[in-house]
Amino acid sequence: LTSRAREHSIRRTLAVEDGPFSKKDSHCLLLGVVTTDNSIEKILLDRIHVDGTDATSKVISLAHRAGSVDLILLPSISLGGFNIVDPEGVHQATKLPILVTNPVKPDLRAVRKALRTHFADWKKRVTVFDRMGSPKALRITRREVIYFYCVGFPLSAAVASLRNAVRFGKRPEPLRIARIIARALGHSTPVEALRSV
Amino acid sequence: LTSRAREHSIRRTLAVEDGPFSKKDSHCLLLGVVTTDNSIEKILLDRIHVDGTDATSKVISLAHRAGSVDLILLPSISLGGFNIVDPEGVHQATKLPILVTNPVKPDLRAVRKALRTHFADWKKRVTVFDRMGSPKALRITRREVIYFYCVGFPLSAAVASLRNAVRFGKRPEPLRIARIIARALGHSTPVEALRSV
Repeated sequence: LTSRAREHSIRRTLAVEDGPFSKKDSHCLLLGVVTTDNSIEKILLDRIHVDGTDATSKVISLAHRAGSVDLILLPSISLGGFNIVDPEGVHQATKLPILVTNPVKPDLRAVRKALRTHFADWKKRVTVFDRMGSPKALRITRREVIYFYCVGFPLSAAVASLRNAVRFGKRPEPLRIARIIARALGHSTPVEALRSV
Repeated sequence: LTSRAREHSIRRTLAVEDGPFSKKDSHCLLLGVVTTDNSIEKILLDRIHVDGTDATSKVISLAHRAGSVDLILLPSISLGGFNIVDPEGVHQATKLPILVTNPVKPDLRAVRKALRTHFADWKKRVTVFDRMGSPKALRITRREVIYFYCVGFPLSAAVASLRNAVRFGKRPEPLRIARIIARALGHSTPVEALRSV
């Protein structure tokens, strides 16, 4: 495949984003946005436990509900606080390429310290970070760099689809769209009231 | 202005959409989506009375919250059942061009009959439909026609911006996006719980 053909082959994407939450919240919104060629097509709603351990299974569930997609985009390895998504677990369950992209470089040392301080099961949580290691950096404009992990497809294909998907700011379009919707929804909707859509 | 320059001048748009509701609901979601070049930028939430009379003032309020936009897009003259939006009223209050676009031809006779049957103030409600008259038709593909009203800008500019904005199906992108979000939000959120965003 040429790089262009590879770009072309990634058309339908599931982007996942978590909603805002406050200290008193037990859950937060988990949003899936299905896009085709960076245009929104469908919205999926679920919720995860803040600092819980259900993020990986909930992302897999969103992927199943999304129908046929070519790629899953995640904004971070931890969602809803320190609810860790295992990109390799998601890849194994869905057979889909996974791209985790972050506009800022994750501070793995700080993450490790926080996990160790606050979670009895910190060793289990930290495993995913240890396995993923340091993210790759991709310069998207002269001044701007984004950080990403990719699982289940070649680095060159990941770079090509990132270049194709980043239009405004430092997020791939599907994740940028998902973030705007997750914030509006998360701020307006008590998570207890969320029904799946 | 050439038609191209006119198209170019409409960049930032407010698209309004109402959420789903059932017979027992007193209110439904009113959603505003601000787009720049058909890409989502901001989401605004409010609610209107089902079959109420506050749609015009609520659309004007969304327009003020949207900040500087070049155009307001509406999916219909009636939102939330028969809560009538007066496009001329919105135009007068905001000084913005208004485009009302519908993938199906509104059945004005049926609307008039329904208003007459169900509303004591039907004469007032029907006034807007009478003033707007029949919508214009625009052929967007060989087989597909959309129907629209425009207020506050020339027909040629309205046609140019419609041609520019319709990408998938029969709705301008901002309205298509707003509809997907309004449905997800409206189905997931009890309107009583809505807080403005």
